[in-house]
Amino acid sequence: MTKVVVLLDFWLSPFGMRVRVALAEKGVEYEYREEDLGNKSQLLLQMNPVHKKIPVLIHNGKPICESLVIVQYIDETWKNKAPLLPSDPYQRAEARFWGDYIDKQIYSCGRRLWTTKGEEQEAAKKELIECFKVLEEHLGDRTYFGGDNLGFVDVALIPFYSWFYAFETCGNFKMEEWCPKIVSWAKTCMQRESVSKSLVDPLKVCHDFVLPRRKTLGLD
Amino acid sequence: MTKVVVLLDFWLSPFGMRVRVALAEKGVEYEYREEDLGNKSQLLLQMNPVHKKIPVLIHNGKPICESLVIVQYIDETWKNKAPLLPSDPYQRAEARFWGDYIDKQIYSCGRRLWTTKGEEQEAAKKELIECFKVLEEHLGDRTYFGGDNLGFVDVALIPFYSWFYAFETCGNFKMEEWCPKIVSWAKTCMQRESVSKSLVDPLKVCHDFVLPRRKTLGLD
Repeated sequence: MTKVVVLLDFWLSPFGMRVRVALAEKGVEYEYREEDLGNKSQLLLQMNPVHKKIPVLIHNGKPICESLVIVQYIDETWKNKAPLLPSDPYQRAEARFWGDYIDKQIYSCGRRLWTTKGEEQEAAKKELIECFKVLEEHLGDRTYFGGDNLGFVDVALIPFYSWFYAFETCGNFKMEEWCPKIVSWAKTCMQRESVSKSLVDPLKVCHDFVLPRRKTLGLD
Repeated sequence: MTKVVVLLDFWLSPFGMRVRVALAEKGVEYEYREEDLGNKSQLLLQMNPVHKKIPVLIHNGKPICESLVIVQYIDETWKNKAPLLPSDPYQRAEARFWGDYIDKQIYSCGRRLWTTKGEEQEAAKKELIECFKVLEEHLGDRTYFGGDNLGFVDVALIPFYSWFYAFETCGNFKMEEWCPKIVSWAKTCMQRESVSKSLVDPLKVCHDFVLPRRKTLGLD
């Protein structure tokens, strides 16, 4: 029998991992379906005809697309446990602002870092580190971006922890040296089962995907 | 005396116009401050240090940035009048999805259309029309994207109506011929004072900004 909640996903997607963390925080059981992105399923094409991208959350047969939209949907649908967005409108706006920042900056700089070489790569690396520093400053002395509890911004950012090692390997740097507070925040997040069981092994992202892909692209 | 609500904006910004429409729908009085984007005010740099962009809504001295974040903040703060997002979580997710679509597709295709020429421009024009057709299909036979009332997606999209004439002039086409339902939807929106007083004259956008800028860029 098909479960009430189905997630169409791809193992190393930071966007997919967001949804996994949010569902785990809420204790929602779901069926995970791995997509072959080179040969997308009819279900994916039908459920996300506009972007044809994972992740897609299917709840009672109806699709929700775009990871941060999905995370908000999860928060509003299963609202009795582990609130992700604060209740105060100003704090909600702040959380949405930073979620958007992570989408616009971290993802695109990270992608440029592992898909280029030479000067272009060096520029992407500098920019990525700058972005993490901005986030580090925003974090300040709090345990989580959400304060004492894991929140929307934590969910938006933590999946990139699975990509840190690939970023470091491609860019020849150590996150720990540049953004120690972010690394320490990530380790705190990883102590939660919702996070540790949803994220993928950083070595696997690097060695099974990023480095072979760089070879295919003629970059190494 | 400074008003409780201040909007840092630039007259032809579709993002700024969204905020103006939302504030007008809610009947919120505010002080409008036009920014000189070539020489940004200290206030703007201080209120949006991350992106340094308009629009910024300042409410009781505290800044909110990014137009769709601002529109949601307005909806959650002044909630007794003209709800913009539906109350059902699934419909809210749908509205956020389409708001994001407009940001990612309409803005960037529109920008490419008026800042390029030749084949690149032709491609941007085709893509822009395709995007409007996707929106047209989503609209279906409803009066507004929000159903019987102006909603979040309407607020996100309607400012581009001020840009239609510039798109048509640069791309040598008529929106009416390709997307008649979108044009008719826009005209319905324009019957609302909240919209008509917030949008700027399409001729002004084209003749006072887009065409001179194309000349400066050496495109015409």
